[in-house]
Parts: sequence; structure tokens; C-alpha cells
Amino acid sequence: MTHIGSFQIHHTDGPARSGELVTAHGVVPTPIFMPVGTQGTVKSLSPDDLENLGARIILGNTYHLYLRPGDELVARRGGLHRFANWPHPILTDSGGFQVFSLAGLRELSEEGVTFRSHIDGSKHFFSPEKVIDIQRNLGSDIMMVLDECVPYGADHAYTEKSLQLTTRWAKRCREAYPRGAGDQLVFGIVQGGFFEDLRRQSAEQICALDCEGFAIGGLSVGESKQEMHDILQCTAPLLPSAKPRYLMGVGTPLDILNGIAAGVDMFDCVLPTRNARNGTLFTSQGKVNIKRAEYQEDDSRLDPACGCYTCRTFSKAYLRHLYTSRELLSYRLNTIHNLTFFLDLVCGAREAIAAGTFASYKKGFEAVYET
Amino acid sequence: MTHIGSFQIHHTDGPARSGELVTAHGVVPTPIFMPVGTQGTVKSLSPDDLENLGARIILGNTYHLYLRPGDELVARRGGLHRFANWPHPILTDSGGFQVFSLAGLRELSEEGVTFRSHIDGSKHFFSPEKVIDIQRNLGSDIMMVLDECVPYGADHAYTEKSLQLTTRWAKRCREAYPRGAGDQLVFGIVQGGFFEDLRRQSAEQICALDCEGFAIGGLSVGESKQEMHDILQCTAPLLPSAKPRYLMGVGTPLDILNGIAAGVDMFDCVLPTRNARNGTLFTSQGKVNIKRAEYQEDDSRLDPACGCYTCRTFSKAYLRHLYTSRELLSYRLNTIHNLTFFLDLVCGAREAIAAGTFASYKKGFEAVYET
Repeated sequence: MTHIGSFQIHHTDGPARSGELVTAHGVVPTPIFMPVGTQGTVKSLSPDDLENLGARIILGNTYHLYLRPGDELVARRGGLHRFANWPHPILTDSGGFQVFSLAGLRELSEEGVTFRSHIDGSKHFFSPEKVIDIQRNLGSDIMMVLDECVPYGADHAYTEKSLQLTTRWAKRCREAYPRGAGDQLVFGIVQGGFFEDLRRQSAEQICALDCEGFAIGGLSVGESKQEMHDILQCTAPLLPSAKPRYLMGVGTPLDILNGIAAGVDMFDCVLPTRNARNGTLFTSQGKVNIKRAEYQEDDSRLDPACGCYTCRTFSKAYLRHLYTSRELLSYRLNTIHNLTFFLDLVCGAREAIAAGTFASYKKGFEAVYET
Repeated sequence: MTHIGSFQIHHTDGPARSGELVTAHGVVPTPIFMPVGTQGTVKSLSPDDLENLGARIILGNTYHLYLRPGDELVARRGGLHRFANWPHPILTDSGGFQVFSLAGLRELSEEGVTFRSHIDGSKHFFSPEKVIDIQRNLGSDIMMVLDECVPYGADHAYTEKSLQLTTRWAKRCREAYPRGAGDQLVFGIVQGGFFEDLRRQSAEQICALDCEGFAIGGLSVGESKQEMHDILQCTAPLLPSAKPRYLMGVGTPLDILNGIAAGVDMFDCVLPTRNARNGTLFTSQGKVNIKRAEYQEDDSRLDPACGCYTCRTFSKAYLRHLYTSRELLSYRLNTIHNLTFFLDLVCGAREAIAAGTFASYKKGFEAVYET
């Protein structure tokens, strides 16, 4: 049972589970957090930084890589792993989320979506088949199907029509890359907005497809924590328990722990990397805004519980100086720390699930981080 | 003869020489290039990056560190070495160059110079004694005396008056920190603009001071290569041969080799680091402008003759993608390479001097780089 795409659950603790997903570029322990490497690089980090901080799989953005440097150029370089010198697993999204949040002029049809590049305004077209082609060119280990991401506040009628289009697109993606066509895996995406009946409808349709994993899309789009929680609680159990479950674009440390508690295995979010560049650092004692004057003469380490290069090497006073002086090193040191925190978070979760102590592990973070 | 400040010449090859300078934080092999760490960090690099690429001594800017985070704050942190976690030698300039090139409202008097911060416009005063105090707070291994940097084009009368003021300031600096007052060394600076008689006058006065080393200031300020060459040829032999000679703020690979040929031991310049951030890379085959379209699909290494992390790991196509996408990683990878090139350049010079082959070593670069 160690063929590409196989998923083994080793331990459960309530709905939470820990396991291993086999991909063409290595085994991913779950639950896992995937750092976001938008343009073929996790901003400010080199591949050896990522290895040193324990990253096991990173995410690439199909929309960005398609526009720049271009998926065909990446294919001619031998694929994204070789181009970026990251020999470990990569998941690529379908580009749908960026088309609906970043690009201009979106025209949706049964066939696909036309949009304008946020870089130069040029016109492009994504169909389900096209985004699979792009992801084949990128050579990612896990490809996501094209989905429509409905904006927060969309009504029941629109959301229902949309999820049905997403289902038809997902089918076309799977048909464009049947199981076993190559070493890449295809994950379906459940939509349905903030309507539980529509989430059930979408899950029924999507999970009927023969995908190697299933994702929950459309969360972290502006809803309240309660709404996210409710949809997560309702949707996660609808995904087949024998396959990896991926909560897309989520989230805070507590969001991730809530996801794990609901039985989710994979997470990605720009939060740790983007916040690092804004000077907001996650620690075992809560969030630290490193630009605050109180750290000006603070010789202590950022997080005594953290073993990352940043925490081993520098004082808060120096990190504050770098940040307030807008030094490039600031972005890297902060990113190394925040990603270490998120990767330690899921590593600790795996150990707690194995030990049957996940609930108390989660409580420890609830004492420090607010929901 | 291994006390702090001792300088041993091991080999000579014409006026070129190789040796070792002993500082409180270690021995510096000469000739040496010093990466510029303006604000307590060599832009985009961590201290372990600097160690990996073979940096032996870095430069800190007194003007910048005085303004931010403040030399007294650095002193309370245990000095610049500890604050920035760089346990190896550091040279600090006197702040004079930045005051005359960067700050606003400069009022010069016998006592010192009043200026406004380029950051917030606040008013400050530097005297010779003050810049020694600041450098004591920073705890650098080599302190530079305060000098007036006359603009390119200054006439003979102004330049003569100025160099005499610089001499009086240098005396006050040495008196403020007599030889042996502590573990820090004081280097004098010869000025005199582009007048050979004034260079001789300045060298006579400055070299009469009991400094541990002497620098040539006032070059690389807009003059032609010929003018720089002439002043270098005239001034270098005027500095005592038993003490280290430092050519400040210079320069290109050929400028450095010309300096070494004239008997100079130490160099610093923002060229490799600033050019790295502008996408101009120095290689054994000449300069590479990494943003050029010709590198878009170039799978070859930046410089096959270079062993740096960037050259070992990435293709020109990937480096171009990072640069054109304005990715933070671009600045670091380019800086690692350019500094490796400059440090390899002086390392090769040391070996060539020991082997008595410096002239042909220099010719090899003249074939690739234009004067």
C-alpha cells in the first residue's frame, strides 16, 4: 500500500487522525501545513531554508506561474521541482481562487472563465482541461480541479448553480487526467458556500468522483469564525474518511487545530508568511508585533520554546531593528520563524493524535490564541 | 608579534603584498574585501550566509547605526558583534562620508559638523571625539577618524584648507582614543582631493600620527578612472609600508586589483551588494544582467567557475524569474553570488601574490572586465 496516491491513517483521536500520503516526490505526514510558494518560491526563503525548518510539501499557485514565468517555460526546465530546486512534494491549486480574487474582467461560462492578468491586463481563458494541462506542465504532485469561488454573501440560488458548475468542471478535470494517467494526483473541491444543504449536495456530487483526495473550498472568504466552524463541522464528515481531506486557504493556528479536530489532514495559508513580512510573529506565548517600542531593548529570544534559526540566533531588539529599518533580512528571519511555528503546530498535533492527547494539545493553544 | 593591531606581511610581489592583520575578533588575511553592512546587516544576508561565503570582516556605517538603532542602544546590547551575531572583525567608518553625501544641512566648523538626519530631519552634531565615542559604543575592531570628504571638483585652495582640518580632526580622534586605550584600532585617512601635492601634504601629516593603519579617502567620488589611478599611484607609496593600507569605498574588480597592485590591503564597496539588488552579477566571464530576455530559458549556472550556493543550486532561468518577479529571494541569491565573487577575487590575489604571479592574475581579469 505504498503506491503513489495511497493514504494510510496510522492513528485516530476522535475525528482527528494522523497518517501518511504517498506522492511521487515523497511521503507527506498528516496533518500537515503547506507553506505557500506563489511564484515558485516561498517568499524570502531558499529551498534549504524550507528543508531546515521542516517543510514537507509546499504549494504553488497555478494562476501566477501560468502568467509568469509561464507553465510551458517551466515544463521546458523539467518542471517546477527542478526549476525551483525543491525535490519534495508540491501541490498546485487550480488558479480558480486567484482568477476570482485577483484578476480583472471575469466572464464565466459553461466552458470556463475568461480573465485579465493583474500584471499586464492581457486576456486569458481557463477551462477545466486547461488548468489540468498547466498543472501537468508544472509537474506538481497534487493537482486541484477548477472551481468557481463564490464571493461571501452569495445567495442560495447563485451558490447552488455555482456548485453544480463546479461539479461539472471537476468531472472534466478528472476526465482530462484519469486516475493513473501519470504520477500526479487529482483532488476534488467541495463548494456550497455557507448553506449546509448545498455543502451536502456538493459533497455528494464531488465525492462520487474518483479523486485521490478531497478539499473543502470557499472558506476564509470573509465569514465569521462561527460560520467557518459550522460549515467545517458539517462538511468534513461528508468527505470519505479513507482519503486525505484538505481545507483550502485556512488559517490561523486555532483554525488549523479546529480543522484537525474535524478530521482534516492538509492546510495551506499565506498567514504565516504574509504576517511575517508585516512584523506579526506567532509564538508559544501568543502573537508578537515585533515593531512595538517595548522590544527596542529586549535582549530575550522571540520564542524560547522555538528552535528555529531566528530564535536560536537573534534577540527581539535586533529583530525589531531590522523590521523598523525595513531591512531585507527581516522578512526572511520572520518567515523562518512563523513557518517553523506552523510546522511545529501540525507536528505536535500528529504526536498528540498518536498519544491520544489531541484535545488537551488543542486546549493549550486556546489558552494563548483567541478564536 | 600577534598582539591586537599587529600586521604581518607574508609575501610581496612588486608593491603588492599579502599578510595578516590581527584584530580583537580575529585575524584578517589581506588583501581583503569588506562587505558593507550599513545598518548592522549586510543587506539580505544572515551572519551564517556571510560565514558560508567566506567573509572575514564586514563594515558598519557609524552614521546609520548612530541614527538607528542608536549607538548607545547597541552598547547596551553588548556591542555590534553581539547585537548582529557577527563574532568576526568589524570596521566602522567615521560617518563623515554619509554626513557629506546623505544628510541634510551640513554646517562645518573647527569643532565638527552639524547635520540633519536623512530619516526624520532631526539635527545632530559630529565632532572627532563624538565619532570615536560612537564607535566605542559600537565596539568595532577598527575605528576610522572623522574626515571632511570634499566634493569632486573642489579647487586647490578649498581642498588644502579641508585636508588640514581633516588632519586636526584626526589628531583629536587619536587623542580621544590613545593607542592601547582598549582593543579597538584607529585608522587615519589621507585626503587631498585630486592634487598630488595635497595628497603628499596630507599623507605627511596623517602618517605622522600614531595610527594602526592608514586609509586613502576621497576617491570614487565621480572622477575618471585615470584620475583615480593617478591619485592611487601617487598616494599608496606615501603610506607606511609596515601598516595596513585601506582604499575606502573602492570599487570595481579592476579597481581592487589596481589597488592591490599599488600596495593596498583593504577594500570596501557597496558595488557587489547594490548591483546584486539591481540584477547585475559579476562572473568569471564578465558582468551578467540577469533580467535580460536571453536568460529566460537558460538552464546553465550563472558562473560555472563559482562555488557559491546560488551557482551550485539554480539556473539563470530561475534567477531571471525571481528577479523579474521582484521576489525577495532574488536579492539574497544575487548578493550571495556577488560577494562570493569579490571575496574569491581577493582570495585569488592573496594566492597569486604568494606565488609571485599577481601580474598575470590581474591580466586575466583585465581580459574580461573593462577599466
